[in-house]
Amino acid sequence: MKRVSIMDVAREVGVSKATVSYVLNHHPGETISADTTARVWDAVKRLNYVPNLNARSLISRKTNMIGVIIPQTEPGKEFMFANPFYGELLSAIEYTARKSGYHLLLTGTETDQSYINIARNRGVDGIIVVGTYPSKNLAELRSIDVPVVLIDSYVRDPAFHTIGIDDKEGGRLATSYLIEHGHRKIAFVSGSLREHGVNDKRYSGYLAALAQAGIAFNEKRVYAGTVDFDYGICAAKEMAERGQKETAAFIAADVLAMGLVKGLHGLGVRIPQDLSIVSFDDVYLSQMCEPSLTTIRQDISAKGRNAVQVIIDAAAQTEHKKREIIMPITLVERESVEDRRE
Amino acid sequence: MKRVSIMDVAREVGVSKATVSYVLNHHPGETISADTTARVWDAVKRLNYVPNLNARSLISRKTNMIGVIIPQTEPGKEFMFANPFYGELLSAIEYTARKSGYHLLLTGTETDQSYINIARNRGVDGIIVVGTYPSKNLAELRSIDVPVVLIDSYVRDPAFHTIGIDDKEGGRLATSYLIEHGHRKIAFVSGSLREHGVNDKRYSGYLAALAQAGIAFNEKRVYAGTVDFDYGICAAKEMAERGQKETAAFIAADVLAMGLVKGLHGLGVRIPQDLSIVSFDDVYLSQMCEPSLTTIRQDISAKGRNAVQVIIDAAAQTEHKKREIIMPITLVERESVEDRRE
Repeated sequence: MKRVSIMDVAREVGVSKATVSYVLNHHPGETISADTTARVWDAVKRLNYVPNLNARSLISRKTNMIGVIIPQTEPGKEFMFANPFYGELLSAIEYTARKSGYHLLLTGTETDQSYINIARNRGVDGIIVVGTYPSKNLAELRSIDVPVVLIDSYVRDPAFHTIGIDDKEGGRLATSYLIEHGHRKIAFVSGSLREHGVNDKRYSGYLAALAQAGIAFNEKRVYAGTVDFDYGICAAKEMAERGQKETAAFIAADVLAMGLVKGLHGLGVRIPQDLSIVSFDDVYLSQMCEPSLTTIRQDISAKGRNAVQVIIDAAAQTEHKKREIIMPITLVERESVEDRRE
Repeated sequence: MKRVSIMDVAREVGVSKATVSYVLNHHPGETISADTTARVWDAVKRLNYVPNLNARSLISRKTNMIGVIIPQTEPGKEFMFANPFYGELLSAIEYTARKSGYHLLLTGTETDQSYINIARNRGVDGIIVVGTYPSKNLAELRSIDVPVVLIDSYVRDPAFHTIGIDDKEGGRLATSYLIEHGHRKIAFVSGSLREHGVNDKRYSGYLAALAQAGIAFNEKRVYAGTVDFDYGICAAKEMAERGQKETAAFIAADVLAMGLVKGLHGLGVRIPQDLSIVSFDDVYLSQMCEPSLTTIRQDISAKGRNAVQVIIDAAAQTEHKKREIIMPITLVERESVEDRRE
C-alpha cells in the first residue's frame, strides 16, 4: 500500500501543501481559517495520513516529544514509583502532553548519566526534570536550545524554568499546626537532608516553627533516611527503641508517614492517641491510610500540567523569558492529629 | 564547539569507523573483541561522543526506543496510575530498557486513538501494550514490522507476543483458600467484567471454585465497577446496604481491596473478624494496608522485565517466533483472612 503523502491531503482538500503543513504543525506565524483547519484535519483522518515525525524533526527541529527525566537519587534503585507522588505527577504530565499532541520520552537516569546526551540524542522539544539537585549533569543542560523546566528543585539558574512550592513554609505550617494543638515534643522524619533539596527546606520550616514557639530544638528527634514506605517502618522501630519521647511528628512525605503508621501499629503505638502526625504531599494514598493523614496538600497534578504548558509556551515564543512558578499549599485536616490543648 | 563525530572516536581508538559503528549498534552479525569493545566505549565516554539517533534511525531503522502504551479503558480518565500495578510495571520496564540502552516513549492512549499512528510516527523498535482488549486499534498493529508484546491481554493473535498469568487459576486459588478456611458466603468484587479481560477470567476462577465445592452461585454477591480505590469504598457501602450477608470476599485487585477495607472500617465492619478478604496482584501497597492483605501474588516486575527482553530478542532475530509467556502465581498469606473452620 502506497503511503499517503501530505500532497494527497492537500489535493483532497483543495489547498496548498504549505497550508496543510501549517495546520499540522500549528505554525504560530500563519493564519489559517477555522474552516480550512477543520477540513484539513478531516482529510487527514479520512485518508489516514501519518506524518513521519522522525524525518520531520530533522528539518523543522520539532519532534512533538517532551523528555521527562526522573533522576534516581539513590543509584541502582529500580523502583521509580516507590513514592506515589511520581506516579501522580507523571499521569498529569502525560495527560496534558497527549491532549496537546505531544508524546513523552521517559527516563529515570542513573545519577552518573548525562541528561544532555538523552536530550540531544532524541531531539526533544523540551525537557522536564523532576526533583533534582545542583549537579554537573544539570549544569550541562544550560547549553541546550530547548526549554528546560525543573520541578521541585532549588536550583535557581536563569537558564531554567522552575515549578515548585514553598517547602519551608509547608514545614512551618505542619509543625505550627501540631504546636497549636498542644504538642511540644515533635519529631521530624524525612529523606536525607541534602542542601537545596525539598526535605532540607521542610526541615528548616520545622526548625522555624519550633523557634517561633520558643521550643528548644532536640536533635534526637530528627529521623532522616529515604523517602519510602520501608524507611517509615524503620523510623518507627528507631522511635520505639529510643523510648518514643515524642507526642507528635511532622513527616516530610505521606508515603513515609504510611510506613511509620504501619510500623508503630505493629509495636502497639496508636495513632493519633499516642502519636499525632502531620505529613506532606496529599498523594491519593493519604486518604487510604488508617487513620487517614492530616497533611500539607500540594496540587501535584497542577504541577505536572503547568510544566507541560511552560514548555509549549516557551517553544512557541521567540523570546525566552524564564518562568518561576510557586504553587500554593494548604493543610488538610483528617484523622491523624489529637488535640492536646488543656 | 565542533560536534564530536564517529570518525573522531575511530581515530582515537585506532580502528575503522565501521568497527565503532558495530560496537555502538551492538551489531549481532559482527564479532568484535572484548578489548576493542571496551576501548571504543572508553573513547566514546572520554570524547563525549553523542550519536544523532534521529538521523541514524532513518538509515538503520533502529531508534533504540520502545513504545509503551497504557490504554485508558475509561475514556478521559487522567490518572494512569490509579492502580499502583501500573507504576510498578512501568518502573520495571523503564529500568530494564535503560540498562539495555533503550528509552521509553510513553503514552496512555484514549480508547479512540490509533496505536499504529503512534508507532509509525515515532519509529520505535518495539511496542508494549498493557492490558488491552480485542479492538480495531490493536488489530491494526498486526501490520507493523516491529515486535509487539501484549501484557495481560487475552487477545491470542499469532502476530503478537504475549506475557501474562493464569488469571482464572488465580481466581480459583483465592476462592478455594477462603472455602478451605470455612467460608461459604463469598462475595466477588472487581472491575467491569468484559469478555477476554483479566477480571472476567478471575471471575470464572471464582465460579469454578464455588462449583468445585458444591456452593450455589448467588449473583447478588457480585460487585463489578472500576479497578480503583474509590469503587472499593462504593462496594463497601453497597455491601452494607444489602445487609452484608457474606463472611468473605475475593477481590480482583489489591487497590480495590484497600478501598473496601477503608469503606467497611468507616461502617464499623472489622477485617478479618466480620469479613475475610483475599485480593490479587501483591502490589507493594498490599503490605501497607491495615490489616495487610492476603493476596494472589504475581511478579509484576518480572512481567515488565520480560516484555523488554522479548522485544530486544525479537529485534535481534531475523526469524520472528512468537512467544507466549505465562508467569507463575502464588498465594501470600497475611492478615486479612479469619479461619472459620469448626
